[in-house]
Amino acid sequence: MATFQPASDTYEDLIRTSFSKQGFMATLGASLVTVEPGFVAIGFPYHEKLTQQHDFVHAGALSAIVDTAGGFAALSLYEAGDGVLTVEFKINLLAPADGDRFLARAEVVRPGRTLTVTKGEVVAIKDDQEKVCAIMQQTMMRVVGRSDVVG
Amino acid sequence: MATFQPASDTYEDLIRTSFSKQGFMATLGASLVTVEPGFVAIGFPYHEKLTQQHDFVHAGALSAIVDTAGGFAALSLYEAGDGVLTVEFKINLLAPADGDRFLARAEVVRPGRTLTVTKGEVVAIKDDQEKVCAIMQQTMMRVVGRSDVVG
Amino acid sequence: MATFQPASDTYEDLIRTSFSKQGFMATLGASLVTVEPGFVAIGFPYHEKLTQQHDFVHAGALSAIVDTAGGFAALSLYEAGDGVLTVEFKINLLAPADGDRFLARAEVVRPGRTLTVTKGEVVAIKDDQEKVCAIMQQTMMRVVGRSDVVG
Amino acid sequence: MATFQPASDTYEDLIRTSFSKQGFMATLGASLVTVEPGFVAIGFPYHEKLTQQHDFVHAGALSAIVDTAGGFAALSLYEAGDGVLTVEFKINLLAPADGDRFLARAEVVRPGRTLTVTKGEVVAIKDDQEKVCAIMQQTMMRVVGRSDVVG
Repeated sequence: MATFQPASDTYEDLIRTSFSKQGFMATLGASLVTVEPGFVAIGFPYHEKLTQQHDFVHAGALSAIVDTAGGFAALSLYEAGDGVLTVEFKINLLAPADGDRFLARAEVVRPGRTLTVTKGEVVAIKDDQEKVCAIMQQTMMRVVGRSDVVG
Repeated sequence: MATFQPASDTYEDLIRTSFSKQGFMATLGASLVTVEPGFVAIGFPYHEKLTQQHDFVHAGALSAIVDTAGGFAALSLYEAGDGVLTVEFKINLLAPADGDRFLARAEVVRPGRTLTVTKGEVVAIKDDQEKVCAIMQQTMMRVVGRSDVVG
Repeated sequence: MATFQPASDTYEDLIRTSFSKQGFMATLGASLVTVEPGFVAIGFPYHEKLTQQHDFVHAGALSAIVDTAGGFAALSLYEAGDGVLTVEFKINLLAPADGDRFLARAEVVRPGRTLTVTKGEVVAIKDDQEKVCAIMQQTMMRVVGRSDVVG
Repeated sequence: MATFQPASDTYEDLIRTSFSKQGFMATLGASLVTVEPGFVAIGFPYHEKLTQQHDFVHAGALSAIVDTAGGFAALSLYEAGDGVLTVEFKINLLAPADGDRFLARAEVVRPGRTLTVTKGEVVAIKDDQEKVCAIMQQTMMRVVGRSDVVG
């Protein structure tokens, strides 16, 4: 993994504030696990409110946390005051989302003035064993001057 | 849009039952709006529990309903007793998810013995005007003999 | 399909000139079949120089023409003097590329100041029957002031 | 990167034979650089027959070698006698394809009975420096009993 320098001293505060403003993250029971320059991890415990028809966690819930982790990984390298938008992402589901906890990790592959490309994965954790259940490739866009933390 | 023949008489019942077993659809406040052979629509009203940091609906919530709509569109053409898994999908976010209601529509592009390819969109509806806010391209896999409605 | 207004009177000339400067299009034996605002079609005849191991046309050759058609569809709506870059695309292969001729069609789904989203398909034509063998979803980026026709 | 066991002793021969039967690889001037269980690299030197309108290598040419590398990475883990088909791939272009040589590397992320998921990258090499110009995520399908080397 590449090492990145944040453009702002306040990136972690900005990300934690933005995360706390996302109603959907609370709905998922998600928490921000790791915030580093160019890398973010978000997780949630298993809950039946997140399931599909076979009682595994729904691909949409996995998508939500890995998309958000990628977005914050991009945001971590922006100047304070810039916001971030998802342009697109693509996710492959590799295994049933069968676990006690789920963790999405995303990192910046190429930071850019306008576009940042990230990749990510979601692991299912069961009896302290990790299994990769999804991988993602994503494009994020910087919105200059529209902070993510001024609603 | 192509016209498809369902392989089972019970496809609509199977889909409605499978939908009702998805805890995540209830969490999103989602309902099954249309079920036809090769075409499914799923919607939800705006709710602050679904938002991202700018109070628009989170891309993950949009992804969840359009992925599910595509999955059921595939399932509608299967024999009773076969189940469906998402292999992968790719979504482009075209506009902020700003609406009173949201509707995901997905249709089968190519049905297959093993793999079915679908495409979909999500529209935001505000003052009865629709605006496309996301488009999706998706690959689904048939799981022979593992019904979606026997958990 | 939406109807678009070109921003320049010269879009068709610009696209034809840009096409003629692409060495790879000549290598593929490709020609520009249709140029309209927001829509472009590019085709080539079958040739063994384009094949994969089963003598069908290689997915990479199909990708090349549908990616290029999408790029020109985006470019057709730009001001003269702006150039276009592929950000990303995703392609599903639906059937073996078995035909006498192949035609890629792409159209703009959402034009934008910075990013334009397109969708496309490739059809194989055999005995005058079309069969869709690939579908694509793509993101293009405008490069302001770097014309595609001044190398 | 994971370590994989090939299912056949002859995987490298099968891949080299299949590669040699692809007319399109010859057209691109491509060669098979590395064949290992679950990992394949394919490269070509810069040539003006591969260019887009700005004299960089065309995204379609990059797509062709990284798609093929991913397909062979999947094939390397199959039993002799099984063939491989591209279901879909998604590619992000990260930088202009400006180099003396180009190398696509792809590896298996999750091998499967029916579907194998791979990821890949293309680097441009200039003055012996590598720069990543594309990344890919791909789904391949096994075709039981249809060898890639019996046309």
